[in-house]
Amino acid sequence: MMKIKVISIGTELLQGKENRDISIIGEMLLSIGLFIETAITVGDDRDVLEDTFKQTLDTSDIIITTGGLGATFDDFTKEVIAKILKRKLLFDRNTMHQIASYFVKRNIEMPKENERQAYIIQGAKIIENNVGTAPGMVIEYKEKLIILLPGPPKELTPMLKTTVIPLLKERFERGFLLKNVFHIVGLTETEVNSKIEPIVKREKGLKFSILAHPGSVDIIIVGQGENELLLDSSIKKLENQIENLFPDNLLGKGTETIETKIRNLLSQKGLTLSVAESCTGGLVSNKITNVAGSSLYFKGTVIAYSNELKINLLGVKEESIKKFGAVSKETALEMASGIRNVMKSDIGLSVTGIAGPGGGTHNKPVGLVYIAYSDGKTEECRKHNFTGDRLYIKQLSTFSALTLLWQKIK
Amino acid sequence: MMKIKVISIGTELLQGKENRDISIIGEMLLSIGLFIETAITVGDDRDVLEDTFKQTLDTSDIIITTGGLGATFDDFTKEVIAKILKRKLLFDRNTMHQIASYFVKRNIEMPKENERQAYIIQGAKIIENNVGTAPGMVIEYKEKLIILLPGPPKELTPMLKTTVIPLLKERFERGFLLKNVFHIVGLTETEVNSKIEPIVKREKGLKFSILAHPGSVDIIIVGQGENELLLDSSIKKLENQIENLFPDNLLGKGTETIETKIRNLLSQKGLTLSVAESCTGGLVSNKITNVAGSSLYFKGTVIAYSNELKINLLGVKEESIKKFGAVSKETALEMASGIRNVMKSDIGLSVTGIAGPGGGTHNKPVGLVYIAYSDGKTEECRKHNFTGDRLYIKQLSTFSALTLLWQKIK
Repeated sequence: MMKIKVISIGTELLQGKENRDISIIGEMLLSIGLFIETAITVGDDRDVLEDTFKQTLDTSDIIITTGGLGATFDDFTKEVIAKILKRKLLFDRNTMHQIASYFVKRNIEMPKENERQAYIIQGAKIIENNVGTAPGMVIEYKEKLIILLPGPPKELTPMLKTTVIPLLKERFERGFLLKNVFHIVGLTETEVNSKIEPIVKREKGLKFSILAHPGSVDIIIVGQGENELLLDSSIKKLENQIENLFPDNLLGKGTETIETKIRNLLSQKGLTLSVAESCTGGLVSNKITNVAGSSLYFKGTVIAYSNELKINLLGVKEESIKKFGAVSKETALEMASGIRNVMKSDIGLSVTGIAGPGGGTHNKPVGLVYIAYSDGKTEECRKHNFTGDRLYIKQLSTFSALTLLWQKIK
Repeated sequence: MMKIKVISIGTELLQGKENRDISIIGEMLLSIGLFIETAITVGDDRDVLEDTFKQTLDTSDIIITTGGLGATFDDFTKEVIAKILKRKLLFDRNTMHQIASYFVKRNIEMPKENERQAYIIQGAKIIENNVGTAPGMVIEYKEKLIILLPGPPKELTPMLKTTVIPLLKERFERGFLLKNVFHIVGLTETEVNSKIEPIVKREKGLKFSILAHPGSVDIIIVGQGENELLLDSSIKKLENQIENLFPDNLLGKGTETIETKIRNLLSQKGLTLSVAESCTGGLVSNKITNVAGSSLYFKGTVIAYSNELKINLLGVKEESIKKFGAVSKETALEMASGIRNVMKSDIGLSVTGIAGPGGGTHNKPVGLVYIAYSDGKTEECRKHNFTGDRLYIKQLSTFSALTLLWQKIK
């Protein structure tokens, strides 16, 4: 088994800044059947990095470092590694040219310090940086591979995609790995778990895991083996079983999201959508419009916090609010049909609820949320009692609204 | 210097799931002047964990582990550590009672496996888990502290706050540490850098760093020393200098955000706000309503993608759109004053632009965004040319809209 270790360098990563590099690298390696064994984060401390790198070098086949390739005094990843490998740092004219043109393009004078970034560890293959100034490097050293990458995710990701992953795939891929992720909506983690338990028990050759998100649950299935065909057919068989287990709740697979599923369905059917939001404050619309092409089916939204605006802008009946309240089935349904009329869309979707922390009462506590769908012919309202803080309730409400929409149009 | 290491345990953390524990712990330790030296992530692999823990034990004063305290077969953090420390795992009646009541409260039958979680390493102080079922533990071992915490951020965070940080503060705090974060809006990282450079060069006793976010830049200043008064006065002096350097762009300090600044200003002045969005698709409103209490000053929003809806719902003049286009200064200003009228608010804020990837032309490329403010007496429109993908342009546009609002009402 290939021993792969990742070393992330940056004091900020130990003082509150999230390190996304490890998850990016881990996910990409997984896609070619390779696994990180250990990921180590150290600060901008020369001695600690030197100790860590020496130790890691003795116990790994592949080392990937991220960070510490910047132009300032506290960036010294390549100096430390060059010293340990007993290699020189050599000035590279081509790299210098690229760094200079980075600044020219942005109309900024190149700071003198950036010249440091044009020095490359002797014998390294250079990975061009098209987004920033620090080049990546691939070094062959005693049957090992040492890969230096810049820290910012937007610089590191393209280098992994275009160079590192193809290189590792070609050289180290052993056997085949298939990974499948199924997205389940409208069920809890426990419900999903108990439904798939018999399959998990039977299919001992495959690895199952369950990952819960706000509003959805992922079933992740990983199979590894020498025979691609066999593996493929056993995963295909599983797909059918999972589809049968969750007829109303299997949203999709892999990179599919509820927003893209909704886009595909609305586009195929030529339907338009509008939204009336209250407690979600724009999050439902934001999700929908995160998808490129949403302007073709999404007409617009009214966010109305007050009763007055719900009545004036959405046509909710004053007596409905008086009798049942702004957070009620009746108001939610009138908001959904109201926004359809205002925006002249085929479908109206609405959310009204209490996101908290204030505004709750004994009968209508924080977390009470009504979600409604209307398409002129049918309508449906669902009541939820969520628990959590304001942001979490906004998230759960949003995902539930999109789930209702998806289930009605699928 | 206290050597603190963090070990995170969980295969998912090496296969794509982000590890937030390290940043949570790092930030909290920093607040009491302590620093993580190294953070190591390992998978659910007994041998790797054993090797890692043994090595770490020899080279640290404090070890904090996160994860691997669950009820299932692949959770074995406490078994491995008990073995290395040569201590027993003992059944704890109190903990069992707490775990059982967790399930009773949720009306779920307790799975048999959860009994495992009631076993505690001999001699450990138990940290109660009020959010989940895995208790935390604090172990004293040969002048060292070993702290076991569950992996989920929502379980680990309260344990850190109520038990771990107070304990470490009492026992290990050396000298004083002051940290100050200044949030600058409306300027680039380079602009901020060059403005503060003279201060950085002069104040050698303090550590400066700059962190760029979409739309804002943080200046982080850390000072450490024995004399709290001296430290305090040197940081206070700096505050004044920074306020003078950035009179229009210093948004705030510490945990202040643009949303909370806007809340405070609107509430103090008794002003109400409404929003007209196009390319941001609800993100501006979502940000504003993430703040508790926003219902007191936020009236609502109209998101209008089409020209027709901009005309019908916001009162934008048909001829303005014909002559200048939907993405123009004129339309942005009419949207801002239009939404004021529709929502009967004191202030109207609007965004119209091209988030891409489609919809750009030679004259109006992707990233062209107009942001406007209107309060009946004054109005202002700003033009931006952003670069990036759809989501990034939505983010930058949103932050710029909030920046314009803040600068007009501050």
